[in-house]
Amino acid sequence: MSFRTAKQDFPVEAVRRYLEPGPVVLVSSFWQGRRNLMTMGWHTVLEFSPSLVGCVISSANHSFDMVRASGECVINLPTTALTDTVVKIGNCSGADVDKFQAFDLTAEPARCVAAPLIGECHACFECRLYDDALVEAYNFFIFEVVAAHVQPLPEHPETLHYKGDGIFMHSGGIVNKKALFRPGMR
Amino acid sequence: MSFRTAKQDFPVEAVRRYLEPGPVVLVSSFWQGRRNLMTMGWHTVLEFSPSLVGCVISSANHSFDMVRASGECVINLPTTALTDTVVKIGNCSGADVDKFQAFDLTAEPARCVAAPLIGECHACFECRLYDDALVEAYNFFIFEVVAAHVQPLPEHPETLHYKGDGIFMHSGGIVNKKALFRPGMR
Repeated sequence: MSFRTAKQDFPVEAVRRYLEPGPVVLVSSFWQGRRNLMTMGWHTVLEFSPSLVGCVISSANHSFDMVRASGECVINLPTTALTDTVVKIGNCSGADVDKFQAFDLTAEPARCVAAPLIGECHACFECRLYDDALVEAYNFFIFEVVAAHVQPLPEHPETLHYKGDGIFMHSGGIVNKKALFRPGMR
Repeated sequence: MSFRTAKQDFPVEAVRRYLEPGPVVLVSSFWQGRRNLMTMGWHTVLEFSPSLVGCVISSANHSFDMVRASGECVINLPTTALTDTVVKIGNCSGADVDKFQAFDLTAEPARCVAAPLIGECHACFECRLYDDALVEAYNFFIFEVVAAHVQPLPEHPETLHYKGDGIFMHSGGIVNKKALFRPGMR
């Protein structure tokens, strides 16, 4: 069981706090009455405001057409409590199975998009497609985060980071280096 | 002191092992007789082969023009032993200081590019600019990794991951989930 408390609104321009450290995330999508989930490790923050995130969603994934056609998704942040579920989501296709049902995940309504939030995740970022200029060449989608929902505790959830070949790293200790930063540089 | 052993050639199509977990990296550049370093947290793997990495290098950085004009850089992976140096590199400008000299870092010759490797880093990835289509709009550079040099030990170096506001996360424990993967899905 993961430690769940109610999520709160979180400023979209601050989502780098959760995405910049490089965790594996789960992408939920919805199109023509069907929902889906995929595991994603190739993403980067691109801008604070508008809050932009760039992601690779391979055209080999069932989610590719759903995200492209709907122009929406939710980026959900799982903790290590969901490790096996994260792997299993990445090892089956939404063409064959409803992954929410198969993995006993709670689909919660989002505020701005039709794609569902994952109740069991620590944070959920509602995204609208902002720029598809590199989708053809690189499967690279640029999304704007239009709403963010985050559990306030724990302050630093234990996240999963993928190294390839079946190996994951967990997030570890936190260090505060504010004193070494110049004003405005953090 | 960091634990240093000689680096070995590493397959460029496998650099996701080091970059996909989302560490802070140091970007070295060289242009018109001058070298520079910057700290970078916004990057993602884009493709295995060719080995492509997408990175945000803000036009506010002294490195921006050097990387764009030379079409080259090296992405270096520091460990937590270099934490204070990483922060200090991000808090001064190459317009004012030679950061290799200021922070006592060893500039080593690369094989394919003029930008130097950082001897003290665990891994160094030589990069050539592959696509600048999104540089104007997003400061987003797509590089091809053309050579990779990695210390074989430790197998899982302790890396730094930035959360913003002066707070870093260290990499933590390693878990092997190979048994849950389908063939070809790792």
